[in-house]
Amino acid sequence: MQREKLNQASKILDEIYVDMWLTLVRETVMNNDPILPFISTIDFTALSGIIVMRGNKNLVIAGHNDAEGVRQTKLYDEVISYSGDFKDALREFLDNNNIHILAVNFSIEDTASDGLSHGLFLLLQEIVNSSSNKPQIVSSATIISKLRGNKSIVEKQLIIGAINTTEQIFDEARAFIKEGTTERQIHQFFTDRIKHYGVQPSWQAAQCPGVMLGPKSVPGHNAPTEITACKGDVMDIDFGVQQNGYCSDLQRTYYILQDSESCACEEVQRAFDTLKEAIKRTAEYMKPGVTGEEADAVARNYVVSQGYDSWNYALGHQVGRMAHDGGMILAPKKGRYNSKQVELPMEAGMVFTLEPGIATSRGYVGIEEMVYITETGAEFLSKPQQQIFLL
Amino acid sequence: MQREKLNQASKILDEIYVDMWLTLVRETVMNNDPILPFISTIDFTALSGIIVMRGNKNLVIAGHNDAEGVRQTKLYDEVISYSGDFKDALREFLDNNNIHILAVNFSIEDTASDGLSHGLFLLLQEIVNSSSNKPQIVSSATIISKLRGNKSIVEKQLIIGAINTTEQIFDEARAFIKEGTTERQIHQFFTDRIKHYGVQPSWQAAQCPGVMLGPKSVPGHNAPTEITACKGDVMDIDFGVQQNGYCSDLQRTYYILQDSESCACEEVQRAFDTLKEAIKRTAEYMKPGVTGEEADAVARNYVVSQGYDSWNYALGHQVGRMAHDGGMILAPKKGRYNSKQVELPMEAGMVFTLEPGIATSRGYVGIEEMVYITETGAEFLSKPQQQIFLL
Repeated sequence: MQREKLNQASKILDEIYVDMWLTLVRETVMNNDPILPFISTIDFTALSGIIVMRGNKNLVIAGHNDAEGVRQTKLYDEVISYSGDFKDALREFLDNNNIHILAVNFSIEDTASDGLSHGLFLLLQEIVNSSSNKPQIVSSATIISKLRGNKSIVEKQLIIGAINTTEQIFDEARAFIKEGTTERQIHQFFTDRIKHYGVQPSWQAAQCPGVMLGPKSVPGHNAPTEITACKGDVMDIDFGVQQNGYCSDLQRTYYILQDSESCACEEVQRAFDTLKEAIKRTAEYMKPGVTGEEADAVARNYVVSQGYDSWNYALGHQVGRMAHDGGMILAPKKGRYNSKQVELPMEAGMVFTLEPGIATSRGYVGIEEMVYITETGAEFLSKPQQQIFLL
Repeated sequence: MQREKLNQASKILDEIYVDMWLTLVRETVMNNDPILPFISTIDFTALSGIIVMRGNKNLVIAGHNDAEGVRQTKLYDEVISYSGDFKDALREFLDNNNIHILAVNFSIEDTASDGLSHGLFLLLQEIVNSSSNKPQIVSSATIISKLRGNKSIVEKQLIIGAINTTEQIFDEARAFIKEGTTERQIHQFFTDRIKHYGVQPSWQAAQCPGVMLGPKSVPGHNAPTEITACKGDVMDIDFGVQQNGYCSDLQRTYYILQDSESCACEEVQRAFDTLKEAIKRTAEYMKPGVTGEEADAVARNYVVSQGYDSWNYALGHQVGRMAHDGGMILAPKKGRYNSKQVELPMEAGMVFTLEPGIATSRGYVGIEEMVYITETGAEFLSKPQQQIFLL
C-alpha cells in the first residue's frame, strides 16, 4: 500500500509542477504526522525527511540509528544516513538536486495535510535560507488530499470490511436494548462487541459509540450517561470501528415502542423518512466535480423544505484511515467550516459520510451512511437504514 | 493527574510572567499534540483551545459538538462552547482578558513542546493580528519542559511499575535464549511476554525490543533479523514497556558461553565493566543544576579514558509517558544534538536514561539504566545490571 501511495505521489508532483515533497519528522511515536502511515511502515526518532521527487523517485534522509530500520522496509529507492547535523544533510540534498518548488505538510484548512509542526517549519526555513537555490516552500495539501482521498481497490475493500462489522454490531444491539437500559450499558455492549470482533473503536473509546437516548441526552461527541431508555424514546447511536487500519462511521436510529404501538410515533417516523430521503437525494446528486457545498445543500434544503431546522454541523466528511479523514468536507460555506474545504470538487475514489439529523420531542433522530464516489456517480458502501429499528 | 498538571501549569505561568498558555488543537485522533494527555482526558474534533491562565484558572473553548464531552471531564473551571467561527471566539477571549504574552506549543529544539502544527500557527497569527491587544506569541517550551519533566509521586511510581515488568521479562529471557536462537525468535519471546503482562511496547512493536546479536547485527533502531546466536556472541537487548500510560527504556547485555568458558571473554567483560562504571560515576555526579552536556561528559570521558571510541549518540534522554520524553537530553554539544537541549539544567523530579555502549569483536555491548533526580542527587529506578547475563 505504501509503495502504491509513494508512486501515486510522484505522479501528482509531475502534474502540479512540484519538484519535491518533504515530510519532515522526528520522534514520531510522540509527535506524529497523519500522512506518515501512508508513506512509511516505521517510526523515526532523529530528525528525518521522507522525500518524494518528480519522475518517480523517493528516498529518506534518516539518522544513523534509524537508517537500518528504514532500509529494512524496502520501500524507498535510497536511504541517506547522517550522523552529524540533519540541516547539513538536507541542505546538501536541496542544492545537489536543484530543487525550486518544495512542498511540505501544512494547511490552515485541512488537518490531514497539517502534520508539520511549527518548530520544524522554522528549522526548515533556516535550512532553505542557507541553501543555494532557496526553494519556494508551498503547501502539500493538494498532494495529501489526493493521496488520502483517492482510495485504491484494496483500501475500499478494507473500508467495506469495517462497515460490515459495524452493521453486524448495530444489528446485535437490537436484541440487547430495551426499556430500562442506560446509555452506559449500551456503550458497554458495543465495547464488548468491539473486543469480541478484535477491532478498535473508530474514535476515542469513551465516546464510541456515542449514544443519544431520548429527549434529555445531549447530541454531539460525549460519553454515555445514566439516562435510561423509556417507552416512546428515540435513540441515535453513532458508531464505527477501525479494522485492519481503516474506519467506518455510521449512525442508526432505534425506537422503544410504547405498549399501544406497533411502529414509531408519527413525529419520529416523519423525521426518519425525511432524513432517509435527504440522504438518497444527495447520493443521487453526488459525482466527480460536485463541490462539498453543493452536496450539503441538496440534503439541507430538502430537510428544511419539510419544515425542519437545519442541523448545526456538516452533512458529511471523508473516511479512510481515520473516521474524520480530512480534506474536502460536505458543509455550508459559513461558520466553522472553512470555505476552501467546501469548495473543492469531488473526485472518483473518495469516501464520504452523509449524516443529517433532526431533533424531535422524543429525542434526536440521526442516520449516517457511507458512500463511494465512482467515475459517474456515488454508490453506497453501507446498507442504508430503511426502517427504524423498533425495540 | 491532569488536574495536578493544570494547577502546576498555572503556577509556572506566574513564575515566568506569561498571561496565557494556549494548546490549539483539532481532530486530535488524527493530528495529536504530545502535551494533550497531560491536560485533557478526551479528544477534540472541531478547532479547540485548552487554556491555562495566570492565577490558577483554566478553561476550554470547544465546538458545540465537543463541549458536553469536555464538561463531562470536570477538569476545567469553564467551558466556552462556540457554534460559529472559532476565530471569533478566541479573538473575543483574548480581548476580554487583556492578554499580552501568549505561549503556544512550538519549539525548534524540543519535539515534546512542538505540538502546534504550522497551519494552526498561521491561523493563530490571523486571530492575533485582528485582535485589539495583539499579544506577543512566545514558545511554551519552558512550561511543557517543566510539566513533563517534573514527575509527581504518582508518575514516579507508574514508571517504576513499568521498569519492574521490564526487568522481569529481561530475566525470563535468560532461560529462553541459547545457541541457535535467532534475533526474530528473541523478539517474538519478548512480544509474547508483553501480551502476557497486558502491557504495550514502549516504542513501535517491530523494533521493541531491539536485538543486537553478535558482530553482524547493526546497532540502532531496527527490526530483528535471522541472525543466529553463536557461542561467544555478546548481545544487547534494548527494551521497554508502557504500563498504565508510563514507559520504561532499558538495555541488558547477554553472553553465550563457549564450551570452555565459565564467564564472558575478557574483551566483552572489560567493555561491560567500563560501561557499568561509567553509569555509576555519572549517576553520582547528577543532581539539580547539572547540565546535560556535563553529565554526558562524565560517562563519555571515562569510557574514552579506558581506550574506547566514544559512542555515536546521546548518553541519555528523559522518560515519562514516552520512552523518549523530550526536553533536556544528556549529550555532547555537537552534531544532531541541539545545543539548547544539552545546556539546560537538571531539575528534581526528572527521569533520565543512562545508556553508553561499546562495540566489540563479539558484538555490541550496551547497558541502559534509569535514574530519578532528587533534591540532592540521583537515585536508580532500575536495578543496575551488575553482571553480564551468561547463557
